[in-house]
Amino acid sequence: MTDILIKRLCIIGVGLIGGSFARALRRAGVVDEIVGSGRDAEHLAEAVRLGVIDRFDTDPAVAVQAADMVVLAVPMGAMQSVLAQIKQHLSPDCMITDVGSVKGPLVTAAEAVFGRLPANFVPGHPIAGTEKSGVAASFAELFDGRRVILTPTPQSDPKIVERIRTVWQACGANVISMGVRHHDEVLAATSHLPHMLAYALVDTLARMDDSREIFTYAAGGFRDFTRIASSDPRMWHDICLANQDALLDVMQRFRDDLQLLIDAIANGDSEFIRQTFTRAKQARDAFADSI
Amino acid sequence: MTDILIKRLCIIGVGLIGGSFARALRRAGVVDEIVGSGRDAEHLAEAVRLGVIDRFDTDPAVAVQAADMVVLAVPMGAMQSVLAQIKQHLSPDCMITDVGSVKGPLVTAAEAVFGRLPANFVPGHPIAGTEKSGVAASFAELFDGRRVILTPTPQSDPKIVERIRTVWQACGANVISMGVRHHDEVLAATSHLPHMLAYALVDTLARMDDSREIFTYAAGGFRDFTRIASSDPRMWHDICLANQDALLDVMQRFRDDLQLLIDAIANGDSEFIRQTFTRAKQARDAFADSI
Repeated sequence: MTDILIKRLCIIGVGLIGGSFARALRRAGVVDEIVGSGRDAEHLAEAVRLGVIDRFDTDPAVAVQAADMVVLAVPMGAMQSVLAQIKQHLSPDCMITDVGSVKGPLVTAAEAVFGRLPANFVPGHPIAGTEKSGVAASFAELFDGRRVILTPTPQSDPKIVERIRTVWQACGANVISMGVRHHDEVLAATSHLPHMLAYALVDTLARMDDSREIFTYAAGGFRDFTRIASSDPRMWHDICLANQDALLDVMQRFRDDLQLLIDAIANGDSEFIRQTFTRAKQARDAFADSI
Repeated sequence: MTDILIKRLCIIGVGLIGGSFARALRRAGVVDEIVGSGRDAEHLAEAVRLGVIDRFDTDPAVAVQAADMVVLAVPMGAMQSVLAQIKQHLSPDCMITDVGSVKGPLVTAAEAVFGRLPANFVPGHPIAGTEKSGVAASFAELFDGRRVILTPTPQSDPKIVERIRTVWQACGANVISMGVRHHDEVLAATSHLPHMLAYALVDTLARMDDSREIFTYAAGGFRDFTRIASSDPRMWHDICLANQDALLDVMQRFRDDLQLLIDAIANGDSEFIRQTFTRAKQARDAFADSI
């Protein structure tokens, strides 16, 4: 028989990630009751119909009552206001975590709301998702074998870190820890920059005169390359402003490298072109072999 | 019973595309004999062992003898030299086509070699492929449902265009025709630019100090986004120089658009960011629905 890890879980923001987290914990049989919250009552009612949550309240202050774990799965831009709304209504022992893609601004927001960071607050980020969004796209297997990065603060209680790790492991994830700032730099490079390039590419092509025809002749490589441009614009707006500094740093690096490649193609610099492509292929092949 | 379309087919360059073309025609039962040619005898012997070709000669001048169709499937940079080698050895009625990703320089090369473009010369480009290369990666289904673009020259005999169309249809492809220059512009946007971005991105990350760690945390979106960076560097070196003008045009457009996005993120211009992402998502979703 499996141990119950959470008696009452409150998920604020029951979309792809929040919904999949609920489903994964139900699959593991480690949660008793799941309460949802969010701005859209209809969406939350759908989550109940789908069996993802047991009940909901659109007021997060009500939804968190007597919960022993609260997970913030709202867009980055909404985190601080949600924290402010729930602050006075949390049980003293309630674990608080989130699933946001950027950790620095969340910690800043929590400091602004709580004054001193709570000992039971441990930011987290599952490296998982699809280009879809909404609870209807959620599924229990989303985190299987995926990495979840926890970024404990200096104030985080190690016992709480360990409990949140156990919860994510019950979802099938491999959990690791790193510093807040380092997390944001690594994710800027591996996730946020690629999304910016995909959005910018599709938009560049969409604004060309013959855009309709152009997309007609796009093939499989293009489909894979641009899949992430179907991601939720509001969420990515929030992410790129939340991780402004680290993202701008890698975007500028990329822009400068792209200019070097443009110059090399303009000058017919075969050596530079071949070296760049060969280095990239080696790195990509090594990456593909490692996963 | 299927009609034989080609008695002796000669494929120069028996790699992913050339090999898949051979396999697709065998599957359709429309070819009697397939002769391979290329620089690497061992690779060609492997193609015989795999049943892709019947025999080979590393000298293209020998391999094309008595062929009624010759397909050039060598890298762009080798096209002109191969045409020069086979010129004196082609049967008068032999159809000549290719599978290159850029059509302008091939036509220029053919003019240089033949003087006047031959009536039985019809450039072609199957919009199909994977990031793999080599005959071992070839398969008969590669062209099923994929587009093949023929770019007949003003000298191309319409009956030959029709015959080559029939051959590609036997491979399972949907065949369309367009002008040489237009082809190169469309492909620069939908295929060559994305490859440049994927190579440049992976190379930018690979040259960062913590590159090994960075790739460790890359997830599914990154895998899809960078798949095309595993493509053959030599082939892509040739493509980007062969399509220099059209490619530089779209690379510069993209670079300028990327700079606007960088500026918008630096200035916290939410409106610009949201509009860009939203336009891109709409275009990508419409594209995904159309295929």
